[in-house]
Amino acid sequence: MPNYKLMYFNMRGRAEIIRYIFAYLDIKYEDHRIEEADWPEIKSTLPFGKIPVLEVDGLLLHQSLAIARYLTKNTDLAGKTAMEQCQADALVDTLDDFMSCFPWAEKKQEVKNEMFNKLLTREAPHLLQSLGTYLGDKEWFIGNSVTWADFYWDICSTTLLVLKPDLLDSHPSLQTLRKKVQAIPAIAAWIQQRPQTRL
Amino acid sequence: MPNYKLMYFNMRGRAEIIRYIFAYLDIKYEDHRIEEADWPEIKSTLPFGKIPVLEVDGLLLHQSLAIARYLTKNTDLAGKTAMEQCQADALVDTLDDFMSCFPWAEKKQEVKNEMFNKLLTREAPHLLQSLGTYLGDKEWFIGNSVTWADFYWDICSTTLLVLKPDLLDSHPSLQTLRKKVQAIPAIAAWIQQRPQTRL
Repeated sequence: MPNYKLMYFNMRGRAEIIRYIFAYLDIKYEDHRIEEADWPEIKSTLPFGKIPVLEVDGLLLHQSLAIARYLTKNTDLAGKTAMEQCQADALVDTLDDFMSCFPWAEKKQEVKNEMFNKLLTREAPHLLQSLGTYLGDKEWFIGNSVTWADFYWDICSTTLLVLKPDLLDSHPSLQTLRKKVQAIPAIAAWIQQRPQTRL
Repeated sequence: MPNYKLMYFNMRGRAEIIRYIFAYLDIKYEDHRIEEADWPEIKSTLPFGKIPVLEVDGLLLHQSLAIARYLTKNTDLAGKTAMEQCQADALVDTLDDFMSCFPWAEKKQEVKNEMFNKLLTREAPHLLQSLGTYLGDKEWFIGNSVTWADFYWDICSTTLLVLKPDLLDSHPSLQTLRKKVQAIPAIAAWIQQRPQTRL
């Protein structure tokens, strides 16, 4: 088994999908969490200046979703067929597109609030309706077992619910899917033991 | 061979990576280009309301990069090892992150110009320097043969050069990589025959 070291801030954010996959696959890794104050110096040493990065036996991989996909390779988490893998990738990118719309780093609080509010109240309902329709009465988003797209839904929606607690009140099937992910023993154990952070 | 129908606007945009891959792998497909006027009606029929979509024997796949990755599966275009595939995915996402920062649909021309200008003059140099360093004196971004990450570089930079023609003047190695991609016979033929559009 390679030696894995994950580097990110002390938050769920863009690293949590990687942590879920490590937990589910029962793979040991170092969950290295850096201080905000140390970030500028560390940033200048990274090939593309962004985290998370995953060190695999000394080789540095970047981009959270690329890393997550790499870790799921040859496991059912990726989807069982090439077609299912494409569907999982597409759902992950759809969720990620939405999360990336939020101006997380905006410094003007008023501008930030207005944009967050617009996304949560005007844009989110369309996405949630599409996701609900796509899920239908299936157990999982894709195929007949859990994939990393279900994990990503749980992770993204956990953050969206911090921002807007009533977001899923009219989407019981999407809430049920969250509960199913969170009830997977390895995921439940990870959620229990992980550092508690707002985002 | 499945029956492929690609649906997008009459532009390169988010569909061009799929078209490059079809061209390179010599796969027949219908390159269906819709009129802007027909978009609202078509949009309402699509599961996530976005294009491109690829119909594969009647099944609808969405998200351009998920589709592109699906088509490269089991070909060297994806990268030859799991690690190379991760590196290609990461580079594609890095390019895509940057292209997604542009407010393509912004209606206020002044706001749009200011944002485009900022991205092209203040942000792009950092990305280009990172890409140049990553490429180094290698022939291709990843491994020892062309991957879809090289294709995506050519496609994204073609659009960036429309917006800022001198963008690569101090990045000869990145220009050389563009020329190498464009000189691949199947890609050269596609560039020659494709509809000419600005973006």
